[in-house]
Amino acid sequence: MQTPPRRRLRELGISVGHYLPGRFNAITDVPGVLVGHSTIIEGDGPLRVGQGPVRTGVTAILPNRDVFEERVVGSGFILHGAGEVSGLTQIMEWGLIETPILLTTTLSVGICVDAVIDWMLEAQPGIGHTHEVVIPVVGECDDSWLNDAAGRHLTAKHVYEALANARSGLVTMGSVGGGTGMVCCDLKGGIGSSSRRLPIDEGGFTLGVLVMSNFGHLADLRIGGAPVGVLLDSDPAFRVDRRIDNYGSIIAVVATNAPLLSHQLHRLCKRVALGIGRAGSWAAHGSGEIVLGFSTANKIPRESRRMTYKMKILLDQRMNALYKAAVEATEEAILDSMCMAVPMTGHSGHHAPALPIEQLPELLVRARAMTSV
Amino acid sequence: MQTPPRRRLRELGISVGHYLPGRFNAITDVPGVLVGHSTIIEGDGPLRVGQGPVRTGVTAILPNRDVFEERVVGSGFILHGAGEVSGLTQIMEWGLIETPILLTTTLSVGICVDAVIDWMLEAQPGIGHTHEVVIPVVGECDDSWLNDAAGRHLTAKHVYEALANARSGLVTMGSVGGGTGMVCCDLKGGIGSSSRRLPIDEGGFTLGVLVMSNFGHLADLRIGGAPVGVLLDSDPAFRVDRRIDNYGSIIAVVATNAPLLSHQLHRLCKRVALGIGRAGSWAAHGSGEIVLGFSTANKIPRESRRMTYKMKILLDQRMNALYKAAVEATEEAILDSMCMAVPMTGHSGHHAPALPIEQLPELLVRARAMTSV
Amino acid sequence: MQTPPRRRLRELGISVGHYLPGRFNAITDVPGVLVGHSTIIEGDGPLRVGQGPVRTGVTAILPNRDVFEERVVGSGFILHGAGEVSGLTQIMEWGLIETPILLTTTLSVGICVDAVIDWMLEAQPGIGHTHEVVIPVVGECDDSWLNDAAGRHLTAKHVYEALANARSGLVTMGSVGGGTGMVCCDLKGGIGSSSRRLPIDEGGFTLGVLVMSNFGHLADLRIGGAPVGVLLDSDPAFRVDRRIDNYGSIIAVVATNAPLLSHQLHRLCKRVALGIGRAGSWAAHGSGEIVLGFSTANKIPRESRRMTYKMKILLDQRMNALYKAAVEATEEAILDSMCMAVPMTGHSGHHAPALPIEQLPELLVRARAMTSV
Amino acid sequence: MQTPPRRRLRELGISVGHYLPGRFNAITDVPGVLVGHSTIIEGDGPLRVGQGPVRTGVTAILPNRDVFEERVVGSGFILHGAGEVSGLTQIMEWGLIETPILLTTTLSVGICVDAVIDWMLEAQPGIGHTHEVVIPVVGECDDSWLNDAAGRHLTAKHVYEALANARSGLVTMGSVGGGTGMVCCDLKGGIGSSSRRLPIDEGGFTLGVLVMSNFGHLADLRIGGAPVGVLLDSDPAFRVDRRIDNYGSIIAVVATNAPLLSHQLHRLCKRVALGIGRAGSWAAHGSGEIVLGFSTANKIPRESRRMTYKMKILLDQRMNALYKAAVEATEEAILDSMCMAVPMTGHSGHHAPALPIEQLPELLVRARAMTSV
Repeated sequence: MQTPPRRRLRELGISVGHYLPGRFNAITDVPGVLVGHSTIIEGDGPLRVGQGPVRTGVTAILPNRDVFEERVVGSGFILHGAGEVSGLTQIMEWGLIETPILLTTTLSVGICVDAVIDWMLEAQPGIGHTHEVVIPVVGECDDSWLNDAAGRHLTAKHVYEALANARSGLVTMGSVGGGTGMVCCDLKGGIGSSSRRLPIDEGGFTLGVLVMSNFGHLADLRIGGAPVGVLLDSDPAFRVDRRIDNYGSIIAVVATNAPLLSHQLHRLCKRVALGIGRAGSWAAHGSGEIVLGFSTANKIPRESRRMTYKMKILLDQRMNALYKAAVEATEEAILDSMCMAVPMTGHSGHHAPALPIEQLPELLVRARAMTSV
Repeated sequence: MQTPPRRRLRELGISVGHYLPGRFNAITDVPGVLVGHSTIIEGDGPLRVGQGPVRTGVTAILPNRDVFEERVVGSGFILHGAGEVSGLTQIMEWGLIETPILLTTTLSVGICVDAVIDWMLEAQPGIGHTHEVVIPVVGECDDSWLNDAAGRHLTAKHVYEALANARSGLVTMGSVGGGTGMVCCDLKGGIGSSSRRLPIDEGGFTLGVLVMSNFGHLADLRIGGAPVGVLLDSDPAFRVDRRIDNYGSIIAVVATNAPLLSHQLHRLCKRVALGIGRAGSWAAHGSGEIVLGFSTANKIPRESRRMTYKMKILLDQRMNALYKAAVEATEEAILDSMCMAVPMTGHSGHHAPALPIEQLPELLVRARAMTSV
Repeated sequence: MQTPPRRRLRELGISVGHYLPGRFNAITDVPGVLVGHSTIIEGDGPLRVGQGPVRTGVTAILPNRDVFEERVVGSGFILHGAGEVSGLTQIMEWGLIETPILLTTTLSVGICVDAVIDWMLEAQPGIGHTHEVVIPVVGECDDSWLNDAAGRHLTAKHVYEALANARSGLVTMGSVGGGTGMVCCDLKGGIGSSSRRLPIDEGGFTLGVLVMSNFGHLADLRIGGAPVGVLLDSDPAFRVDRRIDNYGSIIAVVATNAPLLSHQLHRLCKRVALGIGRAGSWAAHGSGEIVLGFSTANKIPRESRRMTYKMKILLDQRMNALYKAAVEATEEAILDSMCMAVPMTGHSGHHAPALPIEQLPELLVRARAMTSV
Repeated sequence: MQTPPRRRLRELGISVGHYLPGRFNAITDVPGVLVGHSTIIEGDGPLRVGQGPVRTGVTAILPNRDVFEERVVGSGFILHGAGEVSGLTQIMEWGLIETPILLTTTLSVGICVDAVIDWMLEAQPGIGHTHEVVIPVVGECDDSWLNDAAGRHLTAKHVYEALANARSGLVTMGSVGGGTGMVCCDLKGGIGSSSRRLPIDEGGFTLGVLVMSNFGHLADLRIGGAPVGVLLDSDPAFRVDRRIDNYGSIIAVVATNAPLLSHQLHRLCKRVALGIGRAGSWAAHGSGEIVLGFSTANKIPRESRRMTYKMKILLDQRMNALYKAAVEATEEAILDSMCMAVPMTGHSGHHAPALPIEQLPELLVRARAMTSV
């Protein structure tokens, strides 16, 4: 059976929220931001640790081409911390990001950290002697339900590939990169992205969100507030045996060209968490729901003989539109991670069906008609 | 025109979420928890600071009758900190609550703090000499759109009244107590409460939420995920001139008899924030959205000759049901604060219409049918 | 017996740290910063709650004359949170201070909060209707060992007096204002202040610290690292019967004209905590050790039609000198709070002796010669 | 010239603080705690990245032999976050530690994370499929002034070696394990450890601290409060050319058998930070000063059919002795890291002299006699 092509939520005639998306409806609508993937899909059958089957990968997000020299303001927020984003401590302390952001599978964080250092040393051979050291930023979710996670098939080669692939424009979504083996609300999840362009009188800024979605049970899923997951959950075709307590996680990255300080970005990241909640998450005990944010508007000088520098800063009172945009774009990014993901069978016959996008408009009508929600 | 009586959401045939509420569908379903109000509604006409009109009050929540001696485990979470809960620093440090929790209007926090000390000194005359001092817990939202807030009409008498009124059982909701002058999503808000009883195999615990709702614009309001606010916003009858940037706030209190540690309660409070988001909040810049939580299951000894004590603690892995219940009960508590609130005209002709509950079932159908959400 | 006049640490020939103090060696060396006190010393004999004896007061620190309009960047850090600084939540969220900072006794925080609102309403009658509301910043320590704290003798009159007294230049220290009844390391403590002027090549900035000291046991006291407290503790003349577990607290305020962001000030406040530790504190369980900080270099616009503003910001790499200065100035401010405090007998014969400054140089020699420290 | 053997601070007749150390005066005095090292010292001469010279290693701390099954209560505190402890997010969220704690050089964190996963998979082959995944805890300081850090000479073999070497009893200190290439106050630093045994009437608990010291300039060093560093700094023999802005870091681990909750451990970790301050740190901008803590008294069940468990918990009021012990033991652990470290020449002629322990008693006398401190 040939799988019909996946389509984005808006292509299905469904939109979320008030503001309009940018050109690509992706984090790359924020000027300068680059996204690249490396995807590994190999083997079938039962799990043999170290041999496969492999359903994993890595996704790279770069605030700009040379983030080591052109450091951007950054921050984060931990909705639930049963997860890891390496380098988060330094991001929160210094309020800046100076390495690419990678998203991958939990047990491969160490390998990715090491590979990013290799990659950065090529461009900046002074790191670790004439320059200070760097601490790469690598976030993770656990793809072990489909992937031979313990086998750690991701290598430096894949990290380099994701970084080399990083570009502006269209972002490939769904079962790609770090999202290859991810499962969201018992359906195939993975990478999703969405953006919002604020009207000129609200600043005209662009905000984009990229998520690696891996949280939730089927019944949790909400689309534009409608309990589509409850509906699907009662459909035998979507009955899954995947009933584990410590499931889940989502890493979300929000970028904007609004000139925000680190503590403003921290707040923006909290609104991304509200967007994750809108899509149905209640942040389970085993779930690492972690948000990173950066603003491309100001560059923070690495070395300088000066004492001070100047920054243009958005007035706090003007943040409301960004807050609303962050909620919307996050919700849509999560939904697009499922809309664009192809179904996938991993090891041991574990299968993650795709969100049935062809029926989605009709499902939405039915879900909205449900009296108890 | 006589206002028809207000009814709770479930009386309108609308329910939110998966779990069943407790007997009173209120925070008082958690055994031992008491709630009392004192309401001040006086005068009409233009604002004359110090004279009125007055639309304010105070609500008291007691974890038990003698919380100074029977200290409970407590914690909190700040979704957005443009607000105040006195005593929050100590709650977060010690992980316990040893005074009543009061909810009132911003400029009356000082008076309430002082009055609670008076009230506690009556029962515990040693406070401040043989005993250590206490730091009362008073949360606030700003009711100055309807109320002569700067006039600070609340006195110790009202604080005593709310405390004396505190009882278990039915909780009066809507435009009462601290919620008297509050406005939520441009409609009359105030006090709302809801509870959930977990099934026995999920622990059989009860969780209750009480909110003082004062956040949001009309278009933000969502009921069970349906954009009812967008619909009302296009109705001229609900066109409000209240367009202020720094509006809003919500204080939410979550109680449970599940045996939780302070850091487990902190997490539970984060899920209350997700529930606030489900009801439509995106936590505006001027909004103080602060959550408090306590567990009645363990008492923390005040004085003891011993070195250690024993506590029964819920396994972390068993918290998921509480997380879901907290999201649901919060959403419903907010909606009930509006369902139960009578419309109110405050100073200067400022008017907060009530949520049109008679049309709500039909509005919900129409809202659910909206294609863009 | 006439008490000889108190003198500051440097007048005794003892200095702490590397950098030089400013002209007044006080927080008022930071241009624009004002300090004022109101002191209440009334009655003698046993404690009769409500009648006295009274040993209390309030100290006001103003970042500038009109801080409501000229809001400054602010932050804080909680070393141990068994205490209260009202308004701290908003300071941490917005990263700014827009009211005076008051320091007083624990049970009078409510009265002070209320009085500050009165005082601000006089200058800004629109607060609470045309303007948004304000949340005053009032920090506390517990002076109930000397003072009839439960009697709450502080009134709005005293708050107004402290605010009216606020001026630049010399700061009265010791048993004055909020420090009137405070006890530090079992000796008379209270208000202390110190400052540092950085050399031009380290930015030329001024940093000042003001403390209300109320922490510690005698044996904890260290002067310039020397265990003077251990020495005094073995002297029968200083044998105190004051052995209570939940003693203590210190509120410290650090000000600078260096152009710092809120999250830089947060870090600076952490270094103030290290300075508190240098003076001997280990932050006891019952101690509220809370630090506030502000920078006078940038004003944050309250209302604006613009979208953005510009700020001059100190490069992170240039903060080290400020960190060192904060540690030093804090240590010296604490010591000056004791050097300048006159001995005091409070209720019930409770007596706090003064640090014996006449013998201090010789004590220091002896303390330094102690082999075990 | 033969270097005389290094000796611990107490062997020099110098002690710090009030409480007595345990048998080994090390973190291993806490029953069950194990420490092991792997040290790499290879090559000499100029730096050739990838070839050496190598001055690095890794240190392993295990709360018990099978920490994956016998999870302990844990927490942490970030004094300054310009550093990394992988897994810290999960420790703070769940309040527990379930992997060994490794200390190493910054650029080798990724390799260590990966190696720990290998090591844990050998004992627990189900990790990543039948079990959930794990997130190893690896802390770092930057040893690149002596070591070819960018060459990343540490491999899984060394991680296995440190873990295999882990034992109770004597802890090798100084230039070993993760501390091999570390420099503290411009002198040779590295691994140090100290412990305290509380008297029976204060609970009788044992508390131990282990540090990897790498912070500070020479003038910062204080021994028992005396400014020994200022004295050495004026000695031409210790004149160092190492003047870098972004130097430093320290990772400290505090362990105790007192039955502490996670939020009590968080507070204990703050007191470790005060101890770091006592030794001279002011937590420079480039310094990662991060504290981890765990209690061995309770085991947190991994899997259970039950809903709740019971824990014995230390009364909050009884924590003061632990606070004092943590300050003392931290200060002494840092000093012992220097007392025990042999001098070391790394790449490019970079040389870290040893603290001159033979002269230390006399230096201390002179430092104590300094009038300005």
